[in-house]
Amino acid sequence: MDLALAQELSQEAETKIVLFVMDGLGGLPHPDTRRTELEAAYTPHLDRLAKESVCGLTVPVAPGVTPGSGPGHLALFGYDPLVYNVGRGVLEAAGIDFDLQPSDVAARGNFCTIDDDGVITDRRAGRIGSERSEELVAGLREISLGDSVRALVEPVREHRFVLVLRGEGLSDEVTDTDPQKVGVKALASRGSTKDGKATAKLVNEWVSGAQTYLADKSPANMALLRGFAKRPDWPQMADVFKMRAAAVAHYPMYRGLAKLVGMEALTVGPALEDSFAVLRENWDRFDYFFVHYKHTDAAGEDGDYERKVEKIEEVDGAIRTLVEMEPDVLMVTGDHSTPATMAAHSWHSVPFMLHSKWARADRCDNFNEPALAHGSLGTFPAKESLPLAMAHAGRLRKYGA
Amino acid sequence: MDLALAQELSQEAETKIVLFVMDGLGGLPHPDTRRTELEAAYTPHLDRLAKESVCGLTVPVAPGVTPGSGPGHLALFGYDPLVYNVGRGVLEAAGIDFDLQPSDVAARGNFCTIDDDGVITDRRAGRIGSERSEELVAGLREISLGDSVRALVEPVREHRFVLVLRGEGLSDEVTDTDPQKVGVKALASRGSTKDGKATAKLVNEWVSGAQTYLADKSPANMALLRGFAKRPDWPQMADVFKMRAAAVAHYPMYRGLAKLVGMEALTVGPALEDSFAVLRENWDRFDYFFVHYKHTDAAGEDGDYERKVEKIEEVDGAIRTLVEMEPDVLMVTGDHSTPATMAAHSWHSVPFMLHSKWARADRCDNFNEPALAHGSLGTFPAKESLPLAMAHAGRLRKYGA
Repeated sequence: MDLALAQELSQEAETKIVLFVMDGLGGLPHPDTRRTELEAAYTPHLDRLAKESVCGLTVPVAPGVTPGSGPGHLALFGYDPLVYNVGRGVLEAAGIDFDLQPSDVAARGNFCTIDDDGVITDRRAGRIGSERSEELVAGLREISLGDSVRALVEPVREHRFVLVLRGEGLSDEVTDTDPQKVGVKALASRGSTKDGKATAKLVNEWVSGAQTYLADKSPANMALLRGFAKRPDWPQMADVFKMRAAAVAHYPMYRGLAKLVGMEALTVGPALEDSFAVLRENWDRFDYFFVHYKHTDAAGEDGDYERKVEKIEEVDGAIRTLVEMEPDVLMVTGDHSTPATMAAHSWHSVPFMLHSKWARADRCDNFNEPALAHGSLGTFPAKESLPLAMAHAGRLRKYGA
Repeated sequence: MDLALAQELSQEAETKIVLFVMDGLGGLPHPDTRRTELEAAYTPHLDRLAKESVCGLTVPVAPGVTPGSGPGHLALFGYDPLVYNVGRGVLEAAGIDFDLQPSDVAARGNFCTIDDDGVITDRRAGRIGSERSEELVAGLREISLGDSVRALVEPVREHRFVLVLRGEGLSDEVTDTDPQKVGVKALASRGSTKDGKATAKLVNEWVSGAQTYLADKSPANMALLRGFAKRPDWPQMADVFKMRAAAVAHYPMYRGLAKLVGMEALTVGPALEDSFAVLRENWDRFDYFFVHYKHTDAAGEDGDYERKVEKIEEVDGAIRTLVEMEPDVLMVTGDHSTPATMAAHSWHSVPFMLHSKWARADRCDNFNEPALAHGSLGTFPAKESLPLAMAHAGRLRKYGA
């Protein structure tokens, strides 16, 4: 369903929808046991929920496409990720509540380590702490690009920061300086259009200033920039879906993403109990809650099969709290797969279940990939999950006479 | 995935993809045994492969649409057959390595038999041999259409030939003279546009000349033309998918089809062992191999259930050779269904499996229609299979930040 149809059919109702995202949930069989992380995990509560849910596997973007975190989440929010795409710079800026102006160009920055020849040896500068990062950012704020363009710098977390260029005529059609690998030098930014060329020149000037300032600050002796982007002007969930939507997410990028579609990003600690407490406190204020659980993806990205299993089991032990809040619709899914065997995001389809008193339950025995593959939703586009949830929550009108 | 996105995401890699097409693979239950050709066939090797593969059933063009050989294959090559369609004339010409010019109009020709009233009694002229056909083609080359347009004629195989009109202002928007059934007379070609009308006039002049020349050459005493078409200018696999692609196909039409998307058509004999030998010899030169097996379709078209079962079993006995070459991705599927009970192409979905170390295996018990229907890919568009294969071969980049 595209957003125009969603806007036409959506209606208000006294119902609650909860989307619980276990980041990077989908997995692959362990080479020894032939079981995926979800199959290996002991998940009696999730399994019971699956029995009473309508089930399937989602395709976040398109078959074969490995999604970044942005597209994976946007699909779950009901936005076609092939239509609504956003640069990393904007996500990072939105995630720290930076008030981006329409003409601003934002980039994601990394402090990194280079050797005497300028070759990158550590893209994260030994993951310097947030406190040190803030000191360095204070120094970077002194870099001047002249009178017409300001270079705003804000720390994000650890080695990450945001650079925002503010002024007239700036373009986000400039290339990254971050080569995204070690063993090579930082790249010069380039633009192809007139505005792009002018902006790239400013970017390179700024990087040069940063390098000078950071020269004696090893391990953070250089800065890398990527994902130059302007703030998109997207339809908001309140208008399209007629829901007051909240994000319960600890990590900046997911908060930023949620804000781009008009969710209010609630302040929340890193633990699962923190999320559920915030959810309970804000239960009456919203119709829709996106609750983000990061640890499954982090374990998968680290290639740590056992830890991913543990993190799934942590959710299983706590999911009852969520069920007891009695949302009218509870979806449990992921934004993409992150198989521990691959230690990376992947294209594989993603476990999905939707629990509601109006669900025609598929009686899947377990909450894992092979069991959910037999669900009646089959393997379906993730962007269809929000309309499905709205239907089960009495929030979609009949189409046609 | 459309070709623009494929081009954006595809990347080179040191991996091999093999697409093994058993033409017309899908079937229907035998009225006595209620088993499809695949269910009846003894296929221990294909069954084992299915257990370790991600599985499903493909829809070549759209639900309910019976594909010709062109659309069925183009979908498997990753080209939407509703966007990329080509006339039979071009396929035949490309299949015999005829160097079609952009302004040429090509048609597929059949020698046929007509009775004294001009009524077609055999559309294949008793399947005259290739040698006789070449003699007749030599005669047809003498037909003149005046100074500005040349009529080039080339034999294909048995009763088939290609007619190519070469000159300025020719249109391929002209109707067939081949009614594609017996018991009626050949049709006059017609055009609706100005160029079409002029071209149809030339076509009818040529047919008249052919009929005069062939009058005493029974059983080949007439010629039928169909599938008038110009050479399409399509994106090439090397550019879109960044793969060096080869076709291992014996029959001209499939070779022609493969060449239209930029594959190199390797020379190969008719037997399965010939294909595998050519594959092995050229293993290092290409990234992607399309291997075509015709006999399943031929048996199906002949309505010969038992022979189709035997041909499936022939593949089962040989597939190990292919597996032992250790392609990173091996797909086994068909371009469409040709149920022996229908003795024709059909719209039914087509068995599909994708074998790879990165496949999340569906543990389907058998390589047949009912077993594969439980695969996690479900019933999906055939055009999605190439992106899926590329993902499993590490040839698609992540989408979005």
